[in-house]
Amino acid sequence: MVATGADTRALEELRQLLEGDPRVVVDPDLMAAWSRDQSPIAPDAAPLAVVRARSVDDVVAALQWAQRHGVAVVTRGAGTGLTGGANALAGCLVLSVAEMDRIVSIDPARRLATVQPGVINGALDRAAAAHGLRYAPDPGSRATCTIGGNIATNAGGMACCKYGVTADHVAALTVVLADGEVVRLGGATRKNVAGLDLLRLMIGSEGTLGVIVEASVRLLPAVTAASTVAASFASLGAAMEAVVEIGGRLTPAAVELMDRTTVAAVEQMAGMGLDTSAEALLLVVCDGSSAAAEAEQVERIARGHGAGEVYRTDDLAEGEEFMAARRLALPALERQGSILLDDVGVPPDALPAMVVAIEQIAVDEHVTIGTFGHAADGNLHPTIVFDATDPDQRRRAETAFERILHTALAHGGTITGEHGVGALKLPFLAHQVGRRELDLMRKVRAVFDPEGRLNPGRGC
Amino acid sequence: MVATGADTRALEELRQLLEGDPRVVVDPDLMAAWSRDQSPIAPDAAPLAVVRARSVDDVVAALQWAQRHGVAVVTRGAGTGLTGGANALAGCLVLSVAEMDRIVSIDPARRLATVQPGVINGALDRAAAAHGLRYAPDPGSRATCTIGGNIATNAGGMACCKYGVTADHVAALTVVLADGEVVRLGGATRKNVAGLDLLRLMIGSEGTLGVIVEASVRLLPAVTAASTVAASFASLGAAMEAVVEIGGRLTPAAVELMDRTTVAAVEQMAGMGLDTSAEALLLVVCDGSSAAAEAEQVERIARGHGAGEVYRTDDLAEGEEFMAARRLALPALERQGSILLDDVGVPPDALPAMVVAIEQIAVDEHVTIGTFGHAADGNLHPTIVFDATDPDQRRRAETAFERILHTALAHGGTITGEHGVGALKLPFLAHQVGRRELDLMRKVRAVFDPEGRLNPGRGC
Repeated sequence: MVATGADTRALEELRQLLEGDPRVVVDPDLMAAWSRDQSPIAPDAAPLAVVRARSVDDVVAALQWAQRHGVAVVTRGAGTGLTGGANALAGCLVLSVAEMDRIVSIDPARRLATVQPGVINGALDRAAAAHGLRYAPDPGSRATCTIGGNIATNAGGMACCKYGVTADHVAALTVVLADGEVVRLGGATRKNVAGLDLLRLMIGSEGTLGVIVEASVRLLPAVTAASTVAASFASLGAAMEAVVEIGGRLTPAAVELMDRTTVAAVEQMAGMGLDTSAEALLLVVCDGSSAAAEAEQVERIARGHGAGEVYRTDDLAEGEEFMAARRLALPALERQGSILLDDVGVPPDALPAMVVAIEQIAVDEHVTIGTFGHAADGNLHPTIVFDATDPDQRRRAETAFERILHTALAHGGTITGEHGVGALKLPFLAHQVGRRELDLMRKVRAVFDPEGRLNPGRGC
Repeated sequence: MVATGADTRALEELRQLLEGDPRVVVDPDLMAAWSRDQSPIAPDAAPLAVVRARSVDDVVAALQWAQRHGVAVVTRGAGTGLTGGANALAGCLVLSVAEMDRIVSIDPARRLATVQPGVINGALDRAAAAHGLRYAPDPGSRATCTIGGNIATNAGGMACCKYGVTADHVAALTVVLADGEVVRLGGATRKNVAGLDLLRLMIGSEGTLGVIVEASVRLLPAVTAASTVAASFASLGAAMEAVVEIGGRLTPAAVELMDRTTVAAVEQMAGMGLDTSAEALLLVVCDGSSAAAEAEQVERIARGHGAGEVYRTDDLAEGEEFMAARRLALPALERQGSILLDDVGVPPDALPAMVVAIEQIAVDEHVTIGTFGHAADGNLHPTIVFDATDPDQRRRAETAFERILHTALAHGGTITGEHGVGALKLPFLAHQVGRRELDLMRKVRAVFDPEGRLNPGRGC
């Protein structure tokens, strides 16, 4: 978008509203730092301006300004999203809340933390630890991602299979609506059925319904005992059969998969001594007072499904090293080439068939796919590694990506378990939810944003 | 509403659509059986007709008919609601789905049950037990209430503090919209962030967004070990202090309160040998592999807060007898006079102040209030017992009812923790959520029901 005279006047007004640069950024080179999330292939464009909000008042002023001037608004936190959902649109206002990063309060009696949206997930968890508590939702990017972004995407993580997704931990939100009005959704009670559940509607709405400026989230007691089992398998299918049995009989705190391609990439990056000869590595964490007994059962189940090496530790720190290896899966695969990261979910009993289908797609399309993910939830991240400079490889990668989505749907699954729709998955949403449901979503969205200026073309 | 010639023709059309009486009921005396829920004071009126739906096709036909003729629709299951939310409106169509009562499937591998909306909560739980599973949400009326009504009100129960409310157990819904179109929300995956969360929006919407005709709900492993502690206290405040400490340190499966008035009523009804001399009785259930150890801690905490009698049993059946006594609280109080049942929620740490405030309201307004409820959730049912034939008592009861609501709000609480807004609480909803949020709810509602014919005047 070429800046017009009207743009120049509008920008001057914005600068005056938000006194004190650098809260308003208009230099194209500087704005690039706020123009993309971590999706390697979703498109972006040049924004009109970036507002680095420091307060609720800043957000209100920015949204009112955007309304007056008919400017689209893309809200972002740390930009760790993987769907292009926070990528700048041509001529839009990018509204960064990353610098609203204060932990307002931690209330141990209520097990509630109130935070600004830019607070880093891991920082909240560490602050809670000082009270013997923790923040359970643990996306892979928890060292850098923000709570606001986690809520906007209803982010998942490794602990979901026992402790639930982000939405299960949000008690209340303060939200600035498209017209600048501030509303508070939810409350401090454990149960509340007063009217329609707008709190839950806001969670996972990907910046389309309003801007989250404060959140009250639930804290859980810190984990004091955990046992971790690492088990390698000669086939992905056998590993998934083990997952189905584990999920049917136990409630582990994490059941993570890395396939051979992923393990090799992690080994190459970090040299952690993982077994690179196996087709699949399962990492299973059991916590709580019966952690060790549960982990023993996991060992038995893994061996029953033909696991080769099975290693178990009841040491918290050593177990955490295994999980740290798992957290390297995405950055390690990113070092192998360009990636197309998928985020499908299937009912857990469909996992064995799903991993076989993914292997077949890799063969059919002559692409490398590293599959890792949250196996007990049926949530897999088949990651296509390719050379983006080769048009043929790119085309085959995109074909594989789409085939994986349709295969998940054919197994009663979802096109996105935890990353969101963003821009990347929008063409596939109607296949999953149907035309009428998509129409309902869009009309609900229009209730909050009648002019369609909040993250247009993303989410739904 | 007086039947007009147009009504007569419309009814004839309805009868032809739904061949085979008694699916259409028009006799006023017979219709009375479908015209009220269990709220003693909410108003009802004479419906135009009752449809006893047997199939999704029946529901579609009824809704299309209602749309053609501009008739309001009140959907109901067993009618165990406590807010007048299922009471007939003048000239409306009452749509009963109570006879759509088939358990379609129980899938032990997925731990999912698919049911028609009229399936009784307790019947589903028993059917699940045959597979070593259970349906966790356990409203007090679980022997008679239906899953459809549970979902429409996002019903709670005793197990919520550990296992969550109804919404936490619903995977998917099939819903007939106001215009007769059928949509399916959610799916069989554990995680799903594809678009706005219309599934959660539907749950607790009290018949205002559509008619639930099928539900897939999650099942949990059956409880095989539970320890129950019964502890009596000389003051409600001390009992609530114990609850706060229990909730801060442990995760029991139920923490139930009965005050002296409630215990006396239950004793009078059932003679179960409860301690009628105490001001408060706490019933705490711990389950799982560390149930007995956790119950021992509960005992210690109770004694630390001055509990008099403390009785503990590790026997499942004996523990269930205590909980059966608790489930009699409402019917027992109903035998004492007319009742006005409240359903407030406060943050758990506000419980001691809340129960003291309720006692003061009883003194101020010269009314008897029996308080029981789900203490660990901060969800109390202060129940005003009065003589409805005495206008002065009735006025004082209503004053006490309103004061309890406002006191809960003043403590950061909710006007309804699990019963819903229905007709009774609608005048108080804006006090809790604010004008703008109520406006958003109503506009969202209009997306689903543009003509405002689904349970008008209820819910939001």
